Amino acid sequence: MTAFAILGHLARTDGSFSINDLPGSGGRMDVLCRCVNASLFLSHDLRRDVDCYLVLLGPPSGPKTIKFSGSAVRSLSPDERSAAALIKKVIDVPCGSEFREVADGVSIRKRGLERLLSEMPFAVLDETGEDVRKAKDLPGAFLLSDHLNFTDAENALLGSNPRYSVGPKCLHADHTITVLHNELDRRMSGWE
Amino acid sequence: MTAFAILGHLARTDGSFSINDLPGSGGRMDVLCRCVNASLFLSHDLRRDVDCYLVLLGPPSGPKTIKFSGSAVRSLSPDERSAAALIKKVIDVPCGSEFREVADGVSIRKRGLERLLSEMPFAVLDETGEDVRKAKDLPGAFLLSDHLNFTDAENALLGSNPRYSVGPKCLHADHTITVLHNELDRRMSGWE
Repeated sequence: MTAFAILGHLARTDGSFSINDLPGSGGRMDVLCRCVNASLFLSHDLRRDVDCYLVLLGPPSGPKTIKFSGSAVRSLSPDERSAAALIKKVIDVPCGSEFREVADGVSIRKRGLERLLSEMPFAVLDETGEDVRKAKDLPGAFLLSDHLNFTDAENALLGSNPRYSVGPKCLHADHTITVLHNELDRRMSGWE
Repeated sequence: MTAFAILGHLARTDGSFSINDLPGSGGRMDVLCRCVNASLFLSHDLRRDVDCYLVLLGPPSGPKTIKFSGSAVRSLSPDERSAAALIKKVIDVPCGSEFREVADGVSIRKRGLERLLSEMPFAVLDETGEDVRKAKDLPGAFLLSDHLNFTDAENALLGSNPRYSVGPKCLHADHTITVLHNELDRRMSGWE
């Protein structure tokens, strides 16, 4: 089981954004949609053993967390609009502090990073971390930021959680997930 | 200098597709747009030393080849619609068998795979190839297929061109580009 969580610092927390303008009206919701794709898709298949958490921190009613469960999701295609349509479907549904499944494999709750960290030991993906190829063992849960850096408050919450880097260049969050999946796939399959 | 070329077997070759329906009306143009993103984007930066060729093979007036030059492209954002808008801008412009630059860093010509192979020694990325991590040297030009396999006719054209694989799982074309970039970045930076 692998989990990815991505912080969407400006990501809209109601359904008023337009699927035709995910970067602007969605508060860079396009970044999060690409992370759903990178987390869950293989060629002509889904990674059924992966969960992807989108932590939406933007206006007007955040934080909210949306969970895409690879084991249960349906009606998801790789294009950005497909993930965005599912986000739009669940985002205005009344919810509390526990996950409520609104579409197959897509759940939502109130609460953000602090709650997520209390439940799972997330490692952090950023360019200051240890090279994933050199790490003896890799954990099963990884946290990334969207196009913005982690804030001081977020870094304080993350404390001494282990940090990993996927390479010498600073990559988009979705590209980072893809490279990390490759490293995990290789380890699982004896391809190192 | 690195080049990626992606075959879009069904990709529409006029501007009649809708930016709101890239998978359907565009003939899986969404796949090609994600490959442009994977080829050219770093976090907050572009890979200026990369060219990305989209070989459009669908109806009604193919084949056509669109070239995105990392060194010159502007007005390109990472979301699928942004690359699609540039494709739409250039696709109906009259062109011959030489590249005509229609938008900054975005050119178009008639002709498809055969012409491209006559100009550059493309290696092929598919799951039967040599592990990229094990390859002593890697070439600078890579060919991928979209969501469909190479046809027999394409495989015949490719002959004995070298083949590489990025890992044990069968990945989307854009994910494959991202993993390959990581391997190239590591070799360039002494991160192996």
